[in-house]
Amino acid sequence: MKKIAVILSGCGFMDGAEITEAVSTFISLDRRACQYDTFAPDINLNTVNHISSEAEGQRNVLQESARICRGRISDLSHLDPEKYDGLVFPGGFGVAKNLCDWADKGALCSVNKKIESVIQHFFDHSKPILAICIAPALIARVLGAHGVSLTIGNDSATAQEIEKTGAVHEDCKECDFVTDRGTKIISTPAYMYDSSPHNVYLGISRAVDEFVEMA
Amino acid sequence: MKKIAVILSGCGFMDGAEITEAVSTFISLDRRACQYDTFAPDINLNTVNHISSEAEGQRNVLQESARICRGRISDLSHLDPEKYDGLVFPGGFGVAKNLCDWADKGALCSVNKKIESVIQHFFDHSKPILAICIAPALIARVLGAHGVSLTIGNDSATAQEIEKTGAVHEDCKECDFVTDRGTKIISTPAYMYDSSPHNVYLGISRAVDEFVEMA
Repeated sequence: MKKIAVILSGCGFMDGAEITEAVSTFISLDRRACQYDTFAPDINLNTVNHISSEAEGQRNVLQESARICRGRISDLSHLDPEKYDGLVFPGGFGVAKNLCDWADKGALCSVNKKIESVIQHFFDHSKPILAICIAPALIARVLGAHGVSLTIGNDSATAQEIEKTGAVHEDCKECDFVTDRGTKIISTPAYMYDSSPHNVYLGISRAVDEFVEMA
Repeated sequence: MKKIAVILSGCGFMDGAEITEAVSTFISLDRRACQYDTFAPDINLNTVNHISSEAEGQRNVLQESARICRGRISDLSHLDPEKYDGLVFPGGFGVAKNLCDWADKGALCSVNKKIESVIQHFFDHSKPILAICIAPALIARVLGAHGVSLTIGNDSATAQEIEKTGAVHEDCKECDFVTDRGTKIISTPAYMYDSSPHNVYLGISRAVDEFVEMA
């Protein structure tokens, strides 16, 4: 049975993990009989009211992420990458705000040190990484110098920013995914499009099939 | 195109809507090409830390529910049942705490007046209602006197409490559902079992197929 690590960044697309993407990841991994463990950093996030879009107080990324996976989650600092065959990052603005500061600094952003070392481990050991929605920007920041190919759909401003890292951006349709066979990076746009729940599920389900084959 | 109303009760199984059940509902309705609108009451809930299970402060049910459906949600008070062909209640402890007080009072609980009138409207007009996980307890409280048949799986204590309302409880396996053809109430146990994301999705997907046929 393949063991997969999934990293969440909160609960809600404006300040954390995109919920439909996270759930579609869990459904798809479970459907393929993978065992998975979920992790999130034990840090605070700046919350956003998902109706008014206004900034509110702070919450804890690990505690909020726990809502999506029914409390079955561990502090990211306890993640031992040696134990896992593959790594998944669901999207959501939390990836660009809580796992790195791409939201503010783009291609020059800083990345959470643990996240950076975990990504580097999977890359070094030729184990696949699936990055969903905006998460390929995080992968590009860490692995761009290796010329990794990936997608965030067809948003040209974000694609251009990604290419500043050295990564190659490939346009990708809704429900589809891009595989870099050399580096084993798989990416799928999901809610980078104005998509719908079933289309998001379809794209992630297909990307997970490819990911599990490689793991 | 069939129009469906989905009612959420927060965001997270311990104090709100069960997230995998809500997302599985949206994926399944979208897959069947239904148009759906989402509603939640504009009231406060008592939050629970989903790691420690400890009580915390208050949050707003409508604002937290908005996280699951990317802000596309309306205040429950604006729900006009005339506009919809069917009604869905995903589960989660929020149903038993925020839409009624079943969690404290069981079969003698009080139900949010708007929720009660909406359920009564769908029943009176022979339009189907799909109730997931613990939500059949809410339906039993409102429609039990009509002898409606429904399921929350095989938890005998909850089943006995449900039968005090006059409703008939039928045991149901994981991934399956129960239909009361006379009253058009469909129910599926989902996370009333110690289930997994794909099994929850499967059960809800099958129940939605039946529900859409009836709508």
